[in-house]
Amino acid sequence: MFKQVTIIGFGLIGSSIARAIIERKQAETIVCVDQSKDVCQQVLAMGLADDATTDPSLGVEGSDLVILCCPVGAMDEVGGLISGHLQKDCIVSDVGSVKAAVIEMLRPRLPSYVHLVPAHPISGAEKTGPESGFAELFINRWCILTPLPDTELRAIEKVTKLWEAMGSMVEIMDAEHHDLILGLTSHLPHLIAYSVVGTATDLEDDIKSEVIKFSAGGFRDFTRLAASDPTMWRDVFLNNKPAVLEVLQRFTEDLTALQKAIRKGDGEYLYRQFTETRSIRPAIIEAGQADYLDADS
Amino acid sequence: MFKQVTIIGFGLIGSSIARAIIERKQAETIVCVDQSKDVCQQVLAMGLADDATTDPSLGVEGSDLVILCCPVGAMDEVGGLISGHLQKDCIVSDVGSVKAAVIEMLRPRLPSYVHLVPAHPISGAEKTGPESGFAELFINRWCILTPLPDTELRAIEKVTKLWEAMGSMVEIMDAEHHDLILGLTSHLPHLIAYSVVGTATDLEDDIKSEVIKFSAGGFRDFTRLAASDPTMWRDVFLNNKPAVLEVLQRFTEDLTALQKAIRKGDGEYLYRQFTETRSIRPAIIEAGQADYLDADS
Repeated sequence: MFKQVTIIGFGLIGSSIARAIIERKQAETIVCVDQSKDVCQQVLAMGLADDATTDPSLGVEGSDLVILCCPVGAMDEVGGLISGHLQKDCIVSDVGSVKAAVIEMLRPRLPSYVHLVPAHPISGAEKTGPESGFAELFINRWCILTPLPDTELRAIEKVTKLWEAMGSMVEIMDAEHHDLILGLTSHLPHLIAYSVVGTATDLEDDIKSEVIKFSAGGFRDFTRLAASDPTMWRDVFLNNKPAVLEVLQRFTEDLTALQKAIRKGDGEYLYRQFTETRSIRPAIIEAGQADYLDADS
Repeated sequence: MFKQVTIIGFGLIGSSIARAIIERKQAETIVCVDQSKDVCQQVLAMGLADDATTDPSLGVEGSDLVILCCPVGAMDEVGGLISGHLQKDCIVSDVGSVKAAVIEMLRPRLPSYVHLVPAHPISGAEKTGPESGFAELFINRWCILTPLPDTELRAIEKVTKLWEAMGSMVEIMDAEHHDLILGLTSHLPHLIAYSVVGTATDLEDDIKSEVIKFSAGGFRDFTRLAASDPTMWRDVFLNNKPAVLEVLQRFTEDLTALQKAIRKGDGEYLYRQFTETRSIRPAIIEAGQADYLDADS
């Protein structure tokens, strides 16, 4: 499908894409670009790429697809480094969790003869590094593409086919809409999880050890989110500020209302709220995004 | 081990206890008490009890162990109904998620010749009703006992052995300490989850359907908690008010600090916070309260 694919940033996502591309035979050659020499060597040793370099400008030469899998905060710099070295009709894509800011960074950098097709595979795990990737990471997961109004249809189709080949379901929407929806479904939950777990890490040691011991009651679910990559999430919050602050504001209002109900002993309000929220779970199970197996707490 | 065990309230927990007692042969006879006639009939049909009644005073007669598995808000009333019908040396226990309030309700109700051993098995699932219970629910889970200073050791030991026979690990602590720890590990996460999911249910229908679709990014984890039994959780918050408001206050302070950092673009603060919270996850996995399998988001 592609002659040569360059993956820039060989962490969990980058290395999983490499594995999936190899398994699904989507490229003749894979080039690894990573700022760490160790990672480059590791990737070659694991057979995840045919070539590896720490120099992005070198790594993208001759490629018909370049996927930026580096943290969102590095996209601007990487975009600048590769722009003069991309071949005509090369497709540039990424996997960043925010889309408007990434487009803002990359678009002015890239020459008009390449095709920008921003992407966001909604999948991840708490582990990082090239050794933690796996080819099945994207199976039955959504991948959202946020092409620009002037992106060529053929380029969008090629990226769509690649993600479908790796097992994903592809959805196309505009970048601002993506950032609002993901602000609610992903960025807000992570921020809250970081906050709850942060509250616990501030506790005295003896209480903290009990929190760990009895975490099955709900806290455990938050620790999974709060174990996500700090660099990635710092960049998400710095680059999706308006949407995150907007959903955070709504959340805070709702939480304050619940707090007030608890303080006043308003059982009726609590019961009504807790009943309404219940209906969304079966909808998620029906949508195939969860199953009863993760019901156990 | 017990001659006759009465279980009052045959929901998920009550029916799971019945199943585990039968499987581990911990009682000669099980009596079901449930306010719903339908549930009583269902329980008998499923063979989960030898006898069933909607009348608590009738149901506890002749039992050497009575376990209250009704919502915390009903304990006061049920305690009053059974108090005159308990046999000498009967052990009264419960499974409520708050302990100080339950003791406050039950202790004045119960005659001095019975033994109160409050308990809280830390396990649950999003489903309710007798048909959703299973005998394995308590295996490798903690069960916290919060006996009173004057509770007889022999009674504590009998309840400990029962929970161990059902597969649990038993920990003993005082009720106030339990309520604070669980306020953080269970009540706060549930309250926050209810709030986040509530924020989403307030959205317009088209956005809501996208939130469901792309829930795998973190939101999904919250919907599981927010699908918990509304009556049970209303009662938890009404009956653990001081501890919940205390941990909520701490959480809000921490969240506000993160919010401010996002607004100011303070990437250093965010990175530091996100790094500190990361360390708690391996500790939970090491403590056997989570495994890498639930790492996938």
